[in-house]
Amino acid sequence: MNQRIEPRILKGFRDFLPAQESRRKAVQTVLEQVFRRYGFLPIDTPVLEYTDVLLGKGGGETDKQIYRFEDNGGRDVSMRFDLTVPFARYMAQHRAELYLPFKRYHIAKVFRGENTQRGRYREFTQCDFDIVGVDCASADFEILLLMVRSLQALGVREFRIHLSHRGIFNRFLETLGVGDRAGEVLRVVDKIKKSGEEAVREELTQLLDLQRAAQVLMFITADGSPAEVLTSLVALAGHDDGDTGRLEAVLRACAAVGIADHVRLDPSITRGLDYYTGIVYETFLDRAPEIGSVCSGGRYNDLASLYTKEQLPGVGSSIGLDRLLTALEELGQHDAEPAAVDVLVLAFDSGDMGHYHALAEQLRNAGFSAEVYPETRKLAAQFSFAARKGIPVAVICGPEERDSGVVTVKDLATRANYDGLTPQNAVETVRRIIGR
Amino acid sequence: MNQRIEPRILKGFRDFLPAQESRRKAVQTVLEQVFRRYGFLPIDTPVLEYTDVLLGKGGGETDKQIYRFEDNGGRDVSMRFDLTVPFARYMAQHRAELYLPFKRYHIAKVFRGENTQRGRYREFTQCDFDIVGVDCASADFEILLLMVRSLQALGVREFRIHLSHRGIFNRFLETLGVGDRAGEVLRVVDKIKKSGEEAVREELTQLLDLQRAAQVLMFITADGSPAEVLTSLVALAGHDDGDTGRLEAVLRACAAVGIADHVRLDPSITRGLDYYTGIVYETFLDRAPEIGSVCSGGRYNDLASLYTKEQLPGVGSSIGLDRLLTALEELGQHDAEPAAVDVLVLAFDSGDMGHYHALAEQLRNAGFSAEVYPETRKLAAQFSFAARKGIPVAVICGPEERDSGVVTVKDLATRANYDGLTPQNAVETVRRIIGR
Repeated sequence: MNQRIEPRILKGFRDFLPAQESRRKAVQTVLEQVFRRYGFLPIDTPVLEYTDVLLGKGGGETDKQIYRFEDNGGRDVSMRFDLTVPFARYMAQHRAELYLPFKRYHIAKVFRGENTQRGRYREFTQCDFDIVGVDCASADFEILLLMVRSLQALGVREFRIHLSHRGIFNRFLETLGVGDRAGEVLRVVDKIKKSGEEAVREELTQLLDLQRAAQVLMFITADGSPAEVLTSLVALAGHDDGDTGRLEAVLRACAAVGIADHVRLDPSITRGLDYYTGIVYETFLDRAPEIGSVCSGGRYNDLASLYTKEQLPGVGSSIGLDRLLTALEELGQHDAEPAAVDVLVLAFDSGDMGHYHALAEQLRNAGFSAEVYPETRKLAAQFSFAARKGIPVAVICGPEERDSGVVTVKDLATRANYDGLTPQNAVETVRRIIGR
Repeated sequence: MNQRIEPRILKGFRDFLPAQESRRKAVQTVLEQVFRRYGFLPIDTPVLEYTDVLLGKGGGETDKQIYRFEDNGGRDVSMRFDLTVPFARYMAQHRAELYLPFKRYHIAKVFRGENTQRGRYREFTQCDFDIVGVDCASADFEILLLMVRSLQALGVREFRIHLSHRGIFNRFLETLGVGDRAGEVLRVVDKIKKSGEEAVREELTQLLDLQRAAQVLMFITADGSPAEVLTSLVALAGHDDGDTGRLEAVLRACAAVGIADHVRLDPSITRGLDYYTGIVYETFLDRAPEIGSVCSGGRYNDLASLYTKEQLPGVGSSIGLDRLLTALEELGQHDAEPAAVDVLVLAFDSGDMGHYHALAEQLRNAGFSAEVYPETRKLAAQFSFAARKGIPVAVICGPEERDSGVVTVKDLATRANYDGLTPQNAVETVRRIIGR
């Protein structure tokens, strides 16, 4: 009749099976609980926006990574490629309805037509949290604290947040007399984690004279405790309340709250992006450094300048949920998979269907998840379904049991049967088997 | 410098402010808990798919409602316009990885370029739940039960699920000798809730002779208890195990589980969509019938025929989250807005910033959400921020209190102060004020 179509999805896009999606949702729930505990509130914005709003006028005309098209009303529209630009637009548009400092989180899908060969996805989930409206050490520290607590809440113990300050680096380049070449130097320095010190030294000597190249290298490779690194930086770049002083205040707070072990001062962290102006963060897992940073961000001093003349300073960070899930898997850091469903009520006689559902309701009212096998198929088929879905307990109610008002509870792991139970005793038995 | 761009969003799309988004998330969380308690598991699919997969080959070539475009790789792609078609594709594609009966839920955004003048959105959230792989009364009933429990879990008490069976109606039209005009008759009958009985009678008499028009009207307006309506239907259409028998079984289960009060047998319910073949459901709120059905669905006997020759019968229903939220608002059915954040730690001295954050951590460890005011602004500004964000309690730690290791807790509603408290006593005081 109709011509069949091959069921397939676009390259770089994914379906999620129930076990995967449950895991994603569980991670998301943990993160949201942490965010809310720190006073961050959720927002949402559209998947589709005017292209000029997302890219600026004429900007990105040639950007192949953007899903951009003309809608049926002739509008030039694009799918969002990050959550930062829509947030900037949102702050400018809703400024009158919001109060400052404004703390929001946003967990949502973004879309980029990236080359999928490097294991990148074209649809992926970002998880952003920001504090907008203040420029102070307390906010810089709170984002750092939230990064630490988010990972800890997911069971990650061994990680370091590398932080630095874009302002110090820029000031240092000014004192070297190469402030006009900051952009080029930044791009070279940004490669040190991937390409190593020697490659960066070589590239720097092509940009700067030997002495200055050596000083830049000394700056970005300063090592030791945060205090020692800070001393090196002040020696090279001088002290300034706005940058080295800011870092000192953040580091003191780390000590006061007891998270100093997770924090490294690392002057090689610069973040590629132009809009960062202050502290910058990247997060590496001790046992999976090759994954790269799982949570990155920093301070920007003018979030929404594209849309409003009001200056909105902010600081924030972003977790790449897909990369983080990959990391958790590699580390074996997943909690044991909880059973999808606790109890399966077996079906013997379709005439008793209402009774099975009433039994299942009693179990649900006691706090269990339960389902009724819908058809009266052979018991072997019903048990095999339970095994396939990972259901640990069966409730059995044959015609005679039904007449006597009792049921049998079967522990599907040990195959032990507990028969002649009233529904109330059945609930207790299920509780004992499941252990909660 | 750069040319400013007006911050704006596309017509039919929406931003969500924190209070709205919190409410949406709360409703979604409640629904997900109910679904999981019934053994339904989450899945997800891409926002963007191949157009032929979503529309069939050449299908919908002129469909103005679809967001369709050519991506940078020259592929013909479209944004999903519902969750049913992607689910059909998903079942066909992942059949080998899944087991039957398969019960899934899917809460996600869908996109339609609809006319926004009727208060419709172009981006909206659907919430679908289905049982695939069985054709039996137990599954038909379970979806009905889940519809009831979902609404009850959201605090809705006064609602009726109207159900009918497409098969009975078709069989009835066959016996009238007008089976070939079923489509036209269905479309007329579908208008009865909106246009009323007289308008439908008039339209029917244009389609059929007077006697048959009268019989159709008698069929669809059969009234009374489910048993009475069923008797009328059997009188008009005859009895058949497959349809009237199926409805009897579902109604018996409703009585057994105690949800019969929420269920009406209503033969005028036919659902416009062609793919329904068995039971069909629509849900109306007693106190807001004008909103229309907030949860609708039915049985289809061949979900994935576009993609596979395996026949996959199923039954499911869909909640329009946006319409439901509107309804809950109209009914004043929202739970009292919970405080966004429990405690604000005030800031006096930027040098004590680490101490403020450590105090906030103690409150969070005790189960409260807490935040530190980031800057040392005037107390009036900090209190006004607390009021704006709806924070009920402040913790105050001035320089002398800091030295003595104590704090003051302030109930911001009554303005009562509790001073000289150790952090542990402060936690107890906060607990007493907040009442948990």
